[in-house]
Amino acid sequence: MSRFFSEKYVSLTPYTPGEQPRDMQYVKLNTNESPFPPSPSVAAAVAAECRKLQLYSDPESTALREKAAQVYGVRPQQILVTNGSDEVLNFAFMAFGSEKAAFAFPDITYGFYPVFAEVNHVPYVQIPLQEDFTINPQDYMNIGKNIVIANPNAPTGLCLPLSDIEAIVKSNPDNVVIVDEAYVDFGGESAVKLVDQYDNLLVTQTFSKSRSMAGARLGFGIGNEKLIADLNTIKYSTNPYNVNRMTEFAGVAALEENDYYLSNAQTIIQNRQWTKAQLEQLGFTVFDSKANFIFASSDRIDGETLYRELKQRGVLVRHFTKERIAQYIRITIGTMEQLEILIKRIKEILEV
Amino acid sequence: MSRFFSEKYVSLTPYTPGEQPRDMQYVKLNTNESPFPPSPSVAAAVAAECRKLQLYSDPESTALREKAAQVYGVRPQQILVTNGSDEVLNFAFMAFGSEKAAFAFPDITYGFYPVFAEVNHVPYVQIPLQEDFTINPQDYMNIGKNIVIANPNAPTGLCLPLSDIEAIVKSNPDNVVIVDEAYVDFGGESAVKLVDQYDNLLVTQTFSKSRSMAGARLGFGIGNEKLIADLNTIKYSTNPYNVNRMTEFAGVAALEENDYYLSNAQTIIQNRQWTKAQLEQLGFTVFDSKANFIFASSDRIDGETLYRELKQRGVLVRHFTKERIAQYIRITIGTMEQLEILIKRIKEILEV
Repeated sequence: MSRFFSEKYVSLTPYTPGEQPRDMQYVKLNTNESPFPPSPSVAAAVAAECRKLQLYSDPESTALREKAAQVYGVRPQQILVTNGSDEVLNFAFMAFGSEKAAFAFPDITYGFYPVFAEVNHVPYVQIPLQEDFTINPQDYMNIGKNIVIANPNAPTGLCLPLSDIEAIVKSNPDNVVIVDEAYVDFGGESAVKLVDQYDNLLVTQTFSKSRSMAGARLGFGIGNEKLIADLNTIKYSTNPYNVNRMTEFAGVAALEENDYYLSNAQTIIQNRQWTKAQLEQLGFTVFDSKANFIFASSDRIDGETLYRELKQRGVLVRHFTKERIAQYIRITIGTMEQLEILIKRIKEILEV
Repeated sequence: MSRFFSEKYVSLTPYTPGEQPRDMQYVKLNTNESPFPPSPSVAAAVAAECRKLQLYSDPESTALREKAAQVYGVRPQQILVTNGSDEVLNFAFMAFGSEKAAFAFPDITYGFYPVFAEVNHVPYVQIPLQEDFTINPQDYMNIGKNIVIANPNAPTGLCLPLSDIEAIVKSNPDNVVIVDEAYVDFGGESAVKLVDQYDNLLVTQTFSKSRSMAGARLGFGIGNEKLIADLNTIKYSTNPYNVNRMTEFAGVAALEENDYYLSNAQTIIQNRQWTKAQLEQLGFTVFDSKANFIFASSDRIDGETLYRELKQRGVLVRHFTKERIAQYIRITIGTMEQLEILIKRIKEILEV
């Protein structure tokens, strides 16, 4: 830290991204990336933009918002396009959080939410998941706080039905409810269809998971036009050209090949079922995930040891040190080839 | 505005980007883009990254920082890579500004500085340029505030010698001095060579101007390792994967073709001299610009009228409504073909 660093931030603990070791080639099942490349249309769109790289991107991302509006059945003015969904989430904590408008979210969820709250000096409460790691919707009814819920939740993969999400949104009419749908395409039901009914609902999604574009950095928020206008005020006061032209048109091209991506998501769902069954045969407890990862634990080996033993054998999964989930590992669902290696290595480690 | 918008931001006036009209094809001399495409190596690097788009980018931008460190003669730990230089500027206002650490900058300069201050609730003073629109270095000596100076300055194009920059940095040892060198490659002298001597100096640059990559969104900050560490704390608390993998490796490829870009900058300097001479022949007052634009005014027509008349004739330049500079227009230096059209249209408008 320098002697110039503002005391506003000296106690900040930044988010820690999943490790990206470069010492060897791993079977990489640790950051919930898609094992499938983007559709060929994406490379073509990027190549075309590359020839115009000397020109600024469109700060309004008009082409992408118009295409996304079609696909998601909303109006372009209801969409904000951002540099990954982390950016729209940060903007939302900025725009809607304050001393008077605290945030609430589960104790076990995406680890960035408390960081967004801290960096924006927004008070927050972490509501414990139930014993079985599910969210109890009752805990969020009429709480008079802004809410952010990842649905499906991470790292559990568990999903609330849309009726529960709607009840939460409805019962907190004077606060913003953010539904983070990074993983919704793998078995959840999107709340986008509710944005015209509730002016306090903001849905965020990402192109990093089901859309095979984690490396392009593209996310978006969908909500009431006034919520989107507020987020735009933040964007135009920090970084108006937040989405570069290659990424914008990669996004348009991806949305034009929606079937390809939905079909890949189906493959992930099948592979997830296979992996869950295999792990259960080995005595693991595996949550009923609706995401492109599964969260699993074994009585025979603790989470950190299993993570380390797998890494030594060339398979990277994610382990969280937080006490309540330290016994678990989170495994990204990859190709069958990758998952077969994973299961083989686990059998070696457990000596079964 | 929604009823949920934090009162922290309700009075915020966001930055207004230069217009990007789509009603017709303009001779576009309004946003200081390069008229030259990126080097062919850029498209090749982007195509290679496109094939790995499903994988997250490297949050540390290691390859690009290592390459930039070579080119700029610093260590990789002294570099932060950002989503355009707007992002590093915003991070710097966040990290180093506070109630106790106000910012100072000229009254006429990049219009985003007051917005960065407002959005981060950092007090600021705007120090008037002198009558001739130059910065008086004495105004910044021992002022006990953080300072940001665009050098060359915008929209004047006027440049301080490095000795003046150094004197300002030296006389404010307990505050951060940011030198925004977006336009330095067109005739200025960079302060990067001073970063090892002064722990309070942060230099920002961009790939948007001389590097022909405005549409890729790439900027960076160079400074003392501790300053960079603070900026990283902000980055990892808001958007760790801020630079996508296409942009990162476009940047590496561009730095590998440094001669191409420096040669383009020389062409811009020549074209600028030609344009200045032409305008002076038409009776314009033209500042001695060291940037890829010139700032000019005429007694015979006011700035706004000239801007509008040019736009009607298919030539886009930038006009600012701020009182002190309302008489001027800012013209980006393009190709000779574009500039010849500009001069022809001005002659038509002035009927000479």
